[in-house]
Amino acid sequence: MGDSERVSIGIVGASGYGGVQLVRLLKHHPHAELVYLGGDSSAGKGFADLYPHLGHAVDLTVEAIDLEAIANRCQVVFLSLPNGLACKMAPTLVEKGCRVLDLSADYRFRNLETYQSWYGIERDDAEVAATAVYGLPELYRDRIREAQLVGCPGCYPTASLLAIAPLLKQGLAQPESLIIDAKSGTSGGGRQAKTHLLLAEADNSLAAYGVARHRHTPEIEQTCSDLAGHEVMVQFTPHLIPMVRGILATVYATMRDPGLVRDDLLTIYSAFYRNSEWVKILSNGLYPQTKWAWGTNLCYIGIEVDPRTGRVIVLSAIDNLMKGQAGQAVQCFNLMMGFAETLGLPNLSFYP
Amino acid sequence: MGDSERVSIGIVGASGYGGVQLVRLLKHHPHAELVYLGGDSSAGKGFADLYPHLGHAVDLTVEAIDLEAIANRCQVVFLSLPNGLACKMAPTLVEKGCRVLDLSADYRFRNLETYQSWYGIERDDAEVAATAVYGLPELYRDRIREAQLVGCPGCYPTASLLAIAPLLKQGLAQPESLIIDAKSGTSGGGRQAKTHLLLAEADNSLAAYGVARHRHTPEIEQTCSDLAGHEVMVQFTPHLIPMVRGILATVYATMRDPGLVRDDLLTIYSAFYRNSEWVKILSNGLYPQTKWAWGTNLCYIGIEVDPRTGRVIVLSAIDNLMKGQAGQAVQCFNLMMGFAETLGLPNLSFYP
Amino acid sequence: MGDSERVSIGIVGASGYGGVQLVRLLKHHPHAELVYLGGDSSAGKGFADLYPHLGHAVDLTVEAIDLEAIANRCQVVFLSLPNGLACKMAPTLVEKGCRVLDLSADYRFRNLETYQSWYGIERDDAEVAATAVYGLPELYRDRIREAQLVGCPGCYPTASLLAIAPLLKQGLAQPESLIIDAKSGTSGGGRQAKTHLLLAEADNSLAAYGVARHRHTPEIEQTCSDLAGHEVMVQFTPHLIPMVRGILATVYATMRDPGLVRDDLLTIYSAFYRNSEWVKILSNGLYPQTKWAWGTNLCYIGIEVDPRTGRVIVLSAIDNLMKGQAGQAVQCFNLMMGFAETLGLPNLSFYP
Amino acid sequence: MGDSERVSIGIVGASGYGGVQLVRLLKHHPHAELVYLGGDSSAGKGFADLYPHLGHAVDLTVEAIDLEAIANRCQVVFLSLPNGLACKMAPTLVEKGCRVLDLSADYRFRNLETYQSWYGIERDDAEVAATAVYGLPELYRDRIREAQLVGCPGCYPTASLLAIAPLLKQGLAQPESLIIDAKSGTSGGGRQAKTHLLLAEADNSLAAYGVARHRHTPEIEQTCSDLAGHEVMVQFTPHLIPMVRGILATVYATMRDPGLVRDDLLTIYSAFYRNSEWVKILSNGLYPQTKWAWGTNLCYIGIEVDPRTGRVIVLSAIDNLMKGQAGQAVQCFNLMMGFAETLGLPNLSFYP
Repeated sequence: MGDSERVSIGIVGASGYGGVQLVRLLKHHPHAELVYLGGDSSAGKGFADLYPHLGHAVDLTVEAIDLEAIANRCQVVFLSLPNGLACKMAPTLVEKGCRVLDLSADYRFRNLETYQSWYGIERDDAEVAATAVYGLPELYRDRIREAQLVGCPGCYPTASLLAIAPLLKQGLAQPESLIIDAKSGTSGGGRQAKTHLLLAEADNSLAAYGVARHRHTPEIEQTCSDLAGHEVMVQFTPHLIPMVRGILATVYATMRDPGLVRDDLLTIYSAFYRNSEWVKILSNGLYPQTKWAWGTNLCYIGIEVDPRTGRVIVLSAIDNLMKGQAGQAVQCFNLMMGFAETLGLPNLSFYP
Repeated sequence: MGDSERVSIGIVGASGYGGVQLVRLLKHHPHAELVYLGGDSSAGKGFADLYPHLGHAVDLTVEAIDLEAIANRCQVVFLSLPNGLACKMAPTLVEKGCRVLDLSADYRFRNLETYQSWYGIERDDAEVAATAVYGLPELYRDRIREAQLVGCPGCYPTASLLAIAPLLKQGLAQPESLIIDAKSGTSGGGRQAKTHLLLAEADNSLAAYGVARHRHTPEIEQTCSDLAGHEVMVQFTPHLIPMVRGILATVYATMRDPGLVRDDLLTIYSAFYRNSEWVKILSNGLYPQTKWAWGTNLCYIGIEVDPRTGRVIVLSAIDNLMKGQAGQAVQCFNLMMGFAETLGLPNLSFYP
Repeated sequence: MGDSERVSIGIVGASGYGGVQLVRLLKHHPHAELVYLGGDSSAGKGFADLYPHLGHAVDLTVEAIDLEAIANRCQVVFLSLPNGLACKMAPTLVEKGCRVLDLSADYRFRNLETYQSWYGIERDDAEVAATAVYGLPELYRDRIREAQLVGCPGCYPTASLLAIAPLLKQGLAQPESLIIDAKSGTSGGGRQAKTHLLLAEADNSLAAYGVARHRHTPEIEQTCSDLAGHEVMVQFTPHLIPMVRGILATVYATMRDPGLVRDDLLTIYSAFYRNSEWVKILSNGLYPQTKWAWGTNLCYIGIEVDPRTGRVIVLSAIDNLMKGQAGQAVQCFNLMMGFAETLGLPNLSFYP
Repeated sequence: MGDSERVSIGIVGASGYGGVQLVRLLKHHPHAELVYLGGDSSAGKGFADLYPHLGHAVDLTVEAIDLEAIANRCQVVFLSLPNGLACKMAPTLVEKGCRVLDLSADYRFRNLETYQSWYGIERDDAEVAATAVYGLPELYRDRIREAQLVGCPGCYPTASLLAIAPLLKQGLAQPESLIIDAKSGTSGGGRQAKTHLLLAEADNSLAAYGVARHRHTPEIEQTCSDLAGHEVMVQFTPHLIPMVRGILATVYATMRDPGLVRDDLLTIYSAFYRNSEWVKILSNGLYPQTKWAWGTNLCYIGIEVDPRTGRVIVLSAIDNLMKGQAGQAVQCFNLMMGFAETLGLPNLSFYP
């Protein structure tokens, strides 16, 4: 693609937090041209009415969702919708030749029964679903390049899997020992008004939720099983943190070889992510702060070994709306289009 | 003690967060009379110069530390000082007949070698230290009643041990499987100005610290070993949360009997804490929010069982400065004086 | 009333933030007995289902609103409802002999036309409304004592009027120069889920709203006019602050006598509030932090004079849900019952 | 300057918040090359030791301050130091031919006596100081282009003056009526650890400070006087807000012509800032949220007119570390170098 060429892009579900991140990223992407924003409740509104701070940069109006029209105008479509809606739209878009990136859970599962039992949504698009690729570039880079339909990972699975992958791939950990204690800012709950996400409720407080039954569990397990080469079950506990953005995953695993020290693991992780510019392994016993990743597509990983207990503790920090959602989708988009994986994605956070 | 009688009380180290909690609590305690506030850097200042909002209620001046004078004026002395200072003062105060409650780590360890190796502070008060009682009333109620010297628990150990105790005491969990992922507000770091505790640094961010080497580890292990009847090692990971007060401990343990369900554990926990008014077991699959405990001496405990993994997950929430510090000290004081354990301690938080 | 006697109390609208504050305060009030909690959408639910942290202290169920039944069971009724509902209930309750405290705007206005034009709600209870007393004890203490119906002030008017009253009453300021720049935590917006009050939206941000047209303006002006003895118009600008509780009002006024210095004003304010235990005048050029008032019924006032401009700047801090709402209602209740004005109300905040 | 040419740049005082913003911005600036980072206490440390999240992008070491060496290596020098230090360095750097942008107060004042009386610092560089240009591009664009030494404005003056300038320039407001009620996040206090800026102290609280005597007052007045054509005194009150970044200035002024309506003012403001891409005038009665400007160099301005009082209220929001500090310095740098004023500066915030 020449320097001045741009891919025509549509976003369905532009009014939510995923949508506005995509809009912001794609406005600054040198090879993207936003030509369509679609929504349901917000159809007919100017995008700048929803997000006035972008008024000087985005003059698009949110349009009603018309798949035919979308396919005519867009080479690539991002779907940023509640679970269970993308699977009604993606088949048509795919059939009409669009390349599709779905930010919901609809196309993350190889086994639709798993999806159906955890999400309680019936599906009749098995054929198309079977062609979807799980959009975690650090693990499935080559398949994403060729994909027409990408199911972008959840925020928690992204942080968790990037922390876990080298352990399982290299056989360093006992898979059944995996515990992921994850912490997320409240923006992960979306822009829909819910009482427990009010500042008055959530600020200066902290709680776990979905213990032993959060829907991101089977998604994490699917890729863990891939990596280990056999079925793996993990313990996954999410917590709501009084902050806007960011996820920290604290991963515990019992090492197969209790003689490994931190430097061994740092070497292994650095090698594993040698070609992954968005993953930064912290040396010197540093642990990541989520704020370091704020507004970037980065994942920072810190590692500690406890010789007393024989466990490794891996800490992984991302911006849940960037590497955990829209940023990663753009990273996949870059791969699909043959662009540099880093194109149009911020890699330096503002601090503090 | 008659209704109108009051115990004369001194606080050494009144200017820090522990001190100001004690002052506030004891001002409203029906049988306490604050007669002495001591400090080093703040000696000579009015307490209301340090905490102007208390000006209408506290007109004491912080005095230089003079153990003789303190012992003459105070029946009970609270020491709220950095580690390594109480052990220089408590022996004298004890010898002169004061009853002493220490909020630092100095008198928490039965084995002074453990203390010395984790805290790097030499000790020459082994004899007095041997008489100290660990001030966790829910486990050591009777011994606290008789104690002349109480080593009040750390904030993390309080939240952790209350979550763990029934598991180990009843032999429900495999001790070596214990993982404590703990989260604390920044007030736990004290009032001393430190860059990483600035709002600009700590707000809207999240990080682990002291992984595999935090000093509260041996303190947790000491009581866990008591409960289990043999040496227990735990995995303990603290995290700094962008909020002022509160600790949530998320405890993971593999159950000995994987057939236990949540109701079994709720029954066991409720029975275990039957006589402990400050511990509330949440039914119905509720998990505690730290804000529920804000400004109270309560510990809320929620329990979940994961039948897929055979683990129990226990969630325990306290106010780190109350049940995690000053409130618990006052609870111990009540026991030592023969008062009702709940006297002078708030049991209803403000919400939101 | 004897020491052991208790007033039977009902709260209509118990599920909101005003309601839960009232519940918490009245549970600890030595002469109050909560016998009825009423609600609409929450009728039939246990109060502890709405606020689980109070489960150990409150076992009442929210009942449907039946004025007859309420009047039979309650001597005093607190109405904590959206604007426009109390005026449908209070007349009946008053007629049946209850004493009523309304936390909404319905009974704050002497001139119902003002209410109708700012609130857009028609009224047909002019007769009863004419008997209502504005529940700001520091200014209308005697009338509140005798009142059967009290219209409790809004949160902003409370903070503003306590700052302004001495200026106008003593003729120190030019009334037309009054500017109130007010800042509030988000709990003032209530527990109803609204997008702009989500933590993700409101945290780490700051904005004005309702500039030149906020409904608390005529309420402030009504009392200012009382104090000045003639019609006064004020400039009132509220701002939403990323915190849960607290209001700070920054009041600007041009002094009639530019020769006055800060000490003059401190003396005048201290005298004005001599008998008002809930108002604390800060000396020494201290300005209040809202956190000092957190969870208390206190109002802290700081004063500065600018000799360059001839203006006085008064800073007044309250907890918007306490002195700004439920606490003040309980203060009025104390007056109406002949209790000490401070009974059952916290006067020491937790800090930090 | 050709597309591939880069200006060699040094930053003295790189370790503070101003420094790290400059580093971040200049790393992404197409015509800047960072060749020197200087500091005092941090000399010898890797910049990535101070800010580990930038480790993958910045491999410079902080060097001791040696003016000779700096001048040899740098065409342009940014000074980001506490007040009173730049005035010791700038004369030498200027003499050696560097172009200098100072972020402190040292070169903001035309009248050094004003500086000396408000800052209490003696000066002996009057000659150089007289050549300094006040770095507010929207008002002094042409002079900045030619300047060798720029005194970059304070954060509060930036937000205040952009709100006020059209009023005074067009004679719309009575100058003596100007009141600026300003609110800032705590990052304005710098990275130096101070107790009152701890999260535990500043979070969930709000207070004014420096009432009637903040040092930004004379700086605001200097430019107001320029605009009005005669001496102007303003009332300026800063407040500390529990958030990291952002300033909101709420400006009150009595209009000379009380018949003006909001649309008149919107037209006037839009015309005034016609050529200023960094200032956005909000239509439709929108008021700015500080978060909209987070991480950008933008200033959002909202306007309201109160026909009842004859006042105009102007609301202006910036990121205090960007348009309020480092971003504005880079904007000036662009002007000085003949680059587009927007080069290398973010214009789309992350939201939420």
